Amino acid sequence: MSLIRSWVESANLAEAEFPLNNLPCGVFSAEGEEPRCGVAIGSFVLDVTGLEEAGLLVLEGGPLLDVPFWNEVMEAGPEVWAALRAQLTALLAEGADARDAVEEHLFPLAQVTLHMPFLVAEYTDFYAGRHHATNVGTMFRGAENALPPNWLHIPIGYNGRASSVVVSGTDVRRPWGQLKGPNDAAPRFAPCARFDLELELGAVVGRASEGMVSVAEADAMIFGYVLLNDWSARDIQAWEYQPLGPFQAKATATTISPWIVMRAALEPFRTATPPRELPLLPHLQEPGPMLYDIALEVGLTPEAGSETVIARTNYREMYYSAAQQLAHHTTSGCPMNVGDLLGSGTISGPEKSSRGSLLELSWGGKEPIEITGGQRSFLEDGDTLTLRGHAQGQGYRIGFGACAGKVVPAHQNPSGAGR
Amino acid sequence: MSLIRSWVESANLAEAEFPLNNLPCGVFSAEGEEPRCGVAIGSFVLDVTGLEEAGLLVLEGGPLLDVPFWNEVMEAGPEVWAALRAQLTALLAEGADARDAVEEHLFPLAQVTLHMPFLVAEYTDFYAGRHHATNVGTMFRGAENALPPNWLHIPIGYNGRASSVVVSGTDVRRPWGQLKGPNDAAPRFAPCARFDLELELGAVVGRASEGMVSVAEADAMIFGYVLLNDWSARDIQAWEYQPLGPFQAKATATTISPWIVMRAALEPFRTATPPRELPLLPHLQEPGPMLYDIALEVGLTPEAGSETVIARTNYREMYYSAAQQLAHHTTSGCPMNVGDLLGSGTISGPEKSSRGSLLELSWGGKEPIEITGGQRSFLEDGDTLTLRGHAQGQGYRIGFGACAGKVVPAHQNPSGAGR
Repeated sequence: MSLIRSWVESANLAEAEFPLNNLPCGVFSAEGEEPRCGVAIGSFVLDVTGLEEAGLLVLEGGPLLDVPFWNEVMEAGPEVWAALRAQLTALLAEGADARDAVEEHLFPLAQVTLHMPFLVAEYTDFYAGRHHATNVGTMFRGAENALPPNWLHIPIGYNGRASSVVVSGTDVRRPWGQLKGPNDAAPRFAPCARFDLELELGAVVGRASEGMVSVAEADAMIFGYVLLNDWSARDIQAWEYQPLGPFQAKATATTISPWIVMRAALEPFRTATPPRELPLLPHLQEPGPMLYDIALEVGLTPEAGSETVIARTNYREMYYSAAQQLAHHTTSGCPMNVGDLLGSGTISGPEKSSRGSLLELSWGGKEPIEITGGQRSFLEDGDTLTLRGHAQGQGYRIGFGACAGKVVPAHQNPSGAGR
Repeated sequence: MSLIRSWVESANLAEAEFPLNNLPCGVFSAEGEEPRCGVAIGSFVLDVTGLEEAGLLVLEGGPLLDVPFWNEVMEAGPEVWAALRAQLTALLAEGADARDAVEEHLFPLAQVTLHMPFLVAEYTDFYAGRHHATNVGTMFRGAENALPPNWLHIPIGYNGRASSVVVSGTDVRRPWGQLKGPNDAAPRFAPCARFDLELELGAVVGRASEGMVSVAEADAMIFGYVLLNDWSARDIQAWEYQPLGPFQAKATATTISPWIVMRAALEPFRTATPPRELPLLPHLQEPGPMLYDIALEVGLTPEAGSETVIARTNYREMYYSAAQQLAHHTTSGCPMNVGDLLGSGTISGPEKSSRGSLLELSWGGKEPIEITGGQRSFLEDGDTLTLRGHAQGQGYRIGFGACAGKVVPAHQNPSGAGR
C-alpha cells in the first residue's frame, strides 16, 4: 500500500498524519458554530456533516452525520463504514471532479475546536501488556509473584468509568483521595501525590453483540482506534485496590485523541501478537494477526518549559489484542454496545525508555527520570502530557493527532456541590 | 406517618405493597401497546404518561413522561419529584374529585408487562455489608485476613456493567467462563458450576454532579431505590478477580425490581448505620440517619417445585449507606450522571439464615442448605430466585414488587455471532 494522493496538498507530505489513506473520524466546531462531524485530511478538517447535507455524501439509512458524534455511523454497520471511505476517497483524490464543491467544506485544523468524537457507552480497561504487568507486579508483589497466575490465560480487565472519558485538550484536575502509606498509622484525605499517566490505545466498539463472540467476530466489531491516556492516582490505587480492583484511582479522567482511526486505515499494519508463553484455550486463539505496528511516544512539557519525550514504544508489544479482549469480554454473555471503549492496558516495551507510565519509568519514584530543566517521579501541577502515535507506510503515515492533557492543581477544598 | 387512604381500595389493604404512600415509578405495557410510564397503586398501574397527555398531571418543563423511562423526570430535579408525588396523591386520595377522569388510566397489574424503569447510565457495585465481607473474606482469605485493611475506612466498590442490568422476569442464562480449581493443572472453558445470587438494594442517582459532593448532597441526589440481584459466577470470579477485581463473573446479568421506590416514600423509615468500629474521615461522616429499615427476603423455587425462603435480612444491616457510597464515588472528581445505579453490596445479617448469597448460606458449598424437595449449594438450572422487600409503617407497607429471575441452562456451544 502506498500513498493515495489528494488534491489537498498538505495530505501528501511524507510526515502528514492525515493523508487520504487515513480519513479519521472526529467532531469539530468552527468559531461560534455548533459541533459537527469531520474527517481530517492534511492540515484541514472536512465537514462531512455539511457534505451529507449538500448531498455530496450519501450513506445508506442516512442522514447519519446530523448529530455531533459518530455513533450513528458505527451503528449503521461495516458496509456503511466502507461506503463512507470509498466516497470520501473519490471526492478527495487527486483530479477529483468534485473538488470545487468539496473545497468549501474544508476548515483549517488550526482554526477549529475538537470535541469528543463519539458517545462512550461503557469503558473497560485492560492489563494486557507483558512488560507493564511484569514491572508493576514486581513493584507491588515482588518479582516472584509479578505475573498473577491467570495472566497468561486471560486478558485481565476491569470496568472503568465512561463518564470520566474526555477529549484531548481537556485539563485534568489533580484528584483528592483517601491515602495511606505503608508506614502511616491511619488513612488521610488529601490530594494525590503520585499522579501518573498510562499510555494506551483504545478500541472503539462499533457493533453490538449478545452472547459470546469469537476473536474473528470481535475484530470485525471494532470500528477504530484512539490514543488513550488512563490517568492514574497511584497512592489512591495502592490503598483502595484490594480486593475489588481500581476504582477512584482511575475515575478522574481518561483522555482520548480527537480522531478515531478506522480499522480499515490500519489494515496494512497488522502484525501478530508475540509468541504465546503458554497455549491459550481455543476461544481466545487468534485466526490471524490482530495487533498493529503503531509507533507511540509520550511527551512531558512542564509549565513554561519545553517538551521531553519520556517514552517511545509500539502497540505491537501487547500480549493480547483488542479482538481477544473483546471476545473475552463477551464470554459471560455480557452484552456489548456501539460506543463501548476498550483500553488496551499500558503499552510498555522491554527497554527502560519504552515504559508507558511514570510508575515504571521512575520505578515507583525510586529512580526519578531526567527531563529538560528538572526531574520527575510523578506528575507535577502544570505538566502537560502529549501522547502521539502513527503507523508508518511506504511514504505516508497514519496518525492519530495529539492526545494531550494538562495537570491543574487540586481544589483547595474538595467539597463541592451537585450540579 | 400512617396510611393515606385512596379510592383505589386495593391500595388500602394492610399488606398491599403499593399504598398511596408509595407511588413507585415503573414502565409498563398493556397487551399490544407500546411501553409507557406508570406508577403502582394497589393492584393497578396508573398510566402517568396518559395522565400527562390528558393534562391531569402537569410537570414543570414537561412533557417528561412521553418516553418509556423515568430519566427525564429525574433530570427535572427534586421540585418536580415532589410535585409529581403531590399531584398524584391529590388525584388518588379518597374522595378526590378527579376519580372518574383518573380511573380510566388504571390498568390491572396482572394484565400488563413491566419493563426497565430507567435507562442505566453506569452501574457501580459495592461491598459494604460487614457480615457479608467478613463471611466472604473468611472463606477466600482466612479469618485473620477476612476484612481488608481499607474496609472500615472506605466503602469498597467496583464498576460493573450497565449493559447487563435487566428487569425482573428476565431469564438469566448460566454463563460460560474460564475456570481453574485449586487442584486443576490448567484452566478450562466451561459453564459456571457455582452460580449464585447477591441480595442487594440499588440506589438510582437522579442528579448529576461534577467534583466532589458531601454525604448530605449525595443523599439529596438519590431519586430512589430498587431491589437488586447481582448474579455472580463464583468459580469464574475466583480465577479472574486478582489483581483487578471481578469482571466476567458479574457481567452476565443484574436483575432489578420493576419499581423504583422514591426516596420520599422511604423517609419515615430512615435509620442510622451501625456504630463505627473505627472513626471515619470527615468527608464520609453522615449528618443524619442514611439507611432505611427495609425487611428483605429471598425465595428459591426449583423448576416445577415450590418456594423456600432461603434468607431473611434487613437493609439496616449495611455498614455504609448509599449516600456514603455516592460521596466516596465522587472523591476523585468522577462525574456522576442521571441514571447511575449503585448496588449496595450483599445485605447479610448476623444470623446464618440472614445471609444474602448461597456462597455464604452453604459456606462455599461445604454445607448445602435444605429447600423443599432438595438441597442447594449453588443455583441449578430451572431455579427461580425472587427477592422481596418492604418497609413496615403503621398499618401500611412500602413494597418494591418482586425482583425475580430464572436460571436457564448454559448454551451447548457458547460461540455465537454479533447481532
